Amino acid sequence: MTNIPLKIALGADHGGFKLKDVLVTWLRAQGHDVHDFGTNSADSVDYPDYAHIVCDAVLSGNAHYGVLVCGTGLGMSYAANRHAGIRCALVSETTSARLAREHNNANMLALGGRMIGEEMGIDILRVFLATAYEGGRHDRRIAKIQPKFQPNVKGEP
Amino acid sequence: MTNIPLKIALGADHGGFKLKDVLVTWLRAQGHDVHDFGTNSADSVDYPDYAHIVCDAVLSGNAHYGVLVCGTGLGMSYAANRHAGIRCALVSETTSARLAREHNNANMLALGGRMIGEEMGIDILRVFLATAYEGGRHDRRIAKIQPKFQPNVKGEP
Repeated sequence: MTNIPLKIALGADHGGFKLKDVLVTWLRAQGHDVHDFGTNSADSVDYPDYAHIVCDAVLSGNAHYGVLVCGTGLGMSYAANRHAGIRCALVSETTSARLAREHNNANMLALGGRMIGEEMGIDILRVFLATAYEGGRHDRRIAKIQPKFQPNVKGEP
Repeated sequence: MTNIPLKIALGADHGGFKLKDVLVTWLRAQGHDVHDFGTNSADSVDYPDYAHIVCDAVLSGNAHYGVLVCGTGLGMSYAANRHAGIRCALVSETTSARLAREHNNANMLALGGRMIGEEMGIDILRVFLATAYEGGRHDRRIAKIQPKFQPNVKGEP
């Protein structure tokens, strides 16, 4: 399905760094090439700073996949999916992780470090990395994800 | 928390229209002003078409909140969060629905019509609509969700 080793970029805020660190350790044990963008402590940081830098790593081709962890995964998912070309799947179980790859060719995961446990996080990542995109009718839908006209790039209201 | 009646726009694909219809019925029973953008059958459609039209309703001020349902909620969440000013929370339980409002001032929900049941969907929506944004430190983070530079508006690769 996937080539080993993969280049995988990870980022987290203070609510997600513990699960992110677990995933970094697991990915390295699998032989993957891991770029850990932090954060690496419980000191309060802003999740979008980490979301955007990991998106840049994926969009530039420096990483095959990106993984973002905050308290719920929600903030990371809004910020990452702002980027054309990023399909960041916020999931809390393995079925959605599989479908994110099969149907959406998702290239990033968002996880909730305060919502799911370590074993679930590892299983989600394992399934995500092991699942191939199905293509077919899903190509047309993916092509429509980006709005034709950016309705508002002034920033958040 | 919220004023009654609220104006709420809903959209779904063929994997989400059944749950969407349950939510439309529930919202109308609560006295809300509902705009149902469809789809209204199991005939195959493309989820981004419905995501973008509901986002437009929210961004234009014609709706206070938007609700999107596809099979997993994933496709809807990528498409909706492409729009600056939309914070579309993909959730499968009520804790995340509460935190999406308290921490993110989320203005849209994405739900998985093939992942959660009707009662869970109603409870998620009930909690979402009843919960106020906390403001404070979260304002700064929300302001950072939109990337400063749109890195790629050419469309999906």
